[in-house]
Amino acid sequence: MSETRDDFLGGKVKAYQPAQGYRAGVDAVLLAASVPAKPAETALELGCGVGVASLCLAARTDVAVTGVERDSCAAELAGRNGLDVVHADLAALPSEVRERSFHHVFCNPPYFDRGRGNKSDDAAREAARGEQTPLSVWLDVATKRLRPNGTLTVIQDISRLQDVLGSLDDRLGRVTVLPIASRVGQPARLVIVQAKKASRAPFSLLAPLILHKGERHEADEETYTPEVRGILRHGAQLFIRN
Amino acid sequence: MSETRDDFLGGKVKAYQPAQGYRAGVDAVLLAASVPAKPAETALELGCGVGVASLCLAARTDVAVTGVERDSCAAELAGRNGLDVVHADLAALPSEVRERSFHHVFCNPPYFDRGRGNKSDDAAREAARGEQTPLSVWLDVATKRLRPNGTLTVIQDISRLQDVLGSLDDRLGRVTVLPIASRVGQPARLVIVQAKKASRAPFSLLAPLILHKGERHEADEETYTPEVRGILRHGAQLFIRN
Repeated sequence: MSETRDDFLGGKVKAYQPAQGYRAGVDAVLLAASVPAKPAETALELGCGVGVASLCLAARTDVAVTGVERDSCAAELAGRNGLDVVHADLAALPSEVRERSFHHVFCNPPYFDRGRGNKSDDAAREAARGEQTPLSVWLDVATKRLRPNGTLTVIQDISRLQDVLGSLDDRLGRVTVLPIASRVGQPARLVIVQAKKASRAPFSLLAPLILHKGERHEADEETYTPEVRGILRHGAQLFIRN
Repeated sequence: MSETRDDFLGGKVKAYQPAQGYRAGVDAVLLAASVPAKPAETALELGCGVGVASLCLAARTDVAVTGVERDSCAAELAGRNGLDVVHADLAALPSEVRERSFHHVFCNPPYFDRGRGNKSDDAAREAARGEQTPLSVWLDVATKRLRPNGTLTVIQDISRLQDVLGSLDDRLGRVTVLPIASRVGQPARLVIVQAKKASRAPFSLLAPLILHKGERHEADEETYTPEVRGILRHGAQLFIRN
């Protein structure tokens, strides 16, 4: 399989990924930026793919990150990329992961509901796009692996927000939703949802994170807002809630 | 009981309401503005109180509005205010309402979860604030009373968004969330959720509606944004989704 080696965080992170099929991008970097990990804490990424989000998080702060990935090619690349990766199905975690709990669990589950979308020809792409494991299972497994006061962070397509919120149960509180829009005034395209285990704090919906300056696409130059540029190019943290 | 007679929509609507206890305000006007009713259609408001939202809707377009209110004092005032009101508990609608279906159903259910808040001394205030009927029942009854392609519109405190979305089932689609924030960059304070019966269209989260100009409170003058001023003072429609 042909691979590319790509730069993230302005070159601070380099990762091999398949030239074809699902490729990590802005979503993975935003996810990593929003995990509020502090030095010496532990973090788990479910469905880490080739490990881009985990590597970005580890590059920001001195946190021990473990990735779980079912696809053997992606898991092998994640290992070559330097991640501590467990090749396993998140719905059947091996005891080495099941017996641990983490300060932070994060994931970027497939965006498309298998019942709705068109099938892709590429099996790995289909698995990444097309939900073989229901979203509710991702979030249940994530919640189980959290310590009390640990944070769960998920990035998703906005069309799945109702499903994400419906899958968070009362083991979690302090649910915070950050909409992500391409431009000011536009509907959200992506969403980050963060929750805290065993918290009773109320739900909150933040002002949207705006990716691009201006009200429309004007030119082929980079148009990221300063906040987003700081995250994508310089590895800044994305503060969700204090 | 002492009453006041208050102006809404710049005086186009005048309504009696109790001087003490729950009083209709900006929320009721925003709710009415977001119901996409067209002339000759029918609309039902559950828990209409003294009828401010229903009266604002009827003032905007030539729609036949029916209100349902359990509290006898509020229902009596709604009648005096000129609304076609049915004095009944929404969880036990009389056949005259149960046998009808409507183009639009809308409501402003109590904002506070009875399990969480402090009890109020005033029984009517407590009923309006303190959820005697679960939110899921409000939304189920509303959905039942809708025609196919009819719209359900709800305004709620942002802390209840997860509960609202969790109560909308697959009889509804095209769920659209409009966050309402006091000022730009601030977390949402209120939310309008609108859905369409029997639609399969995807979920959408809109850019927030901003109530006040500027980034902070500067002076005691009116600071509504032009869009909100148009709604509150001139009875403009709040377009949720085309």
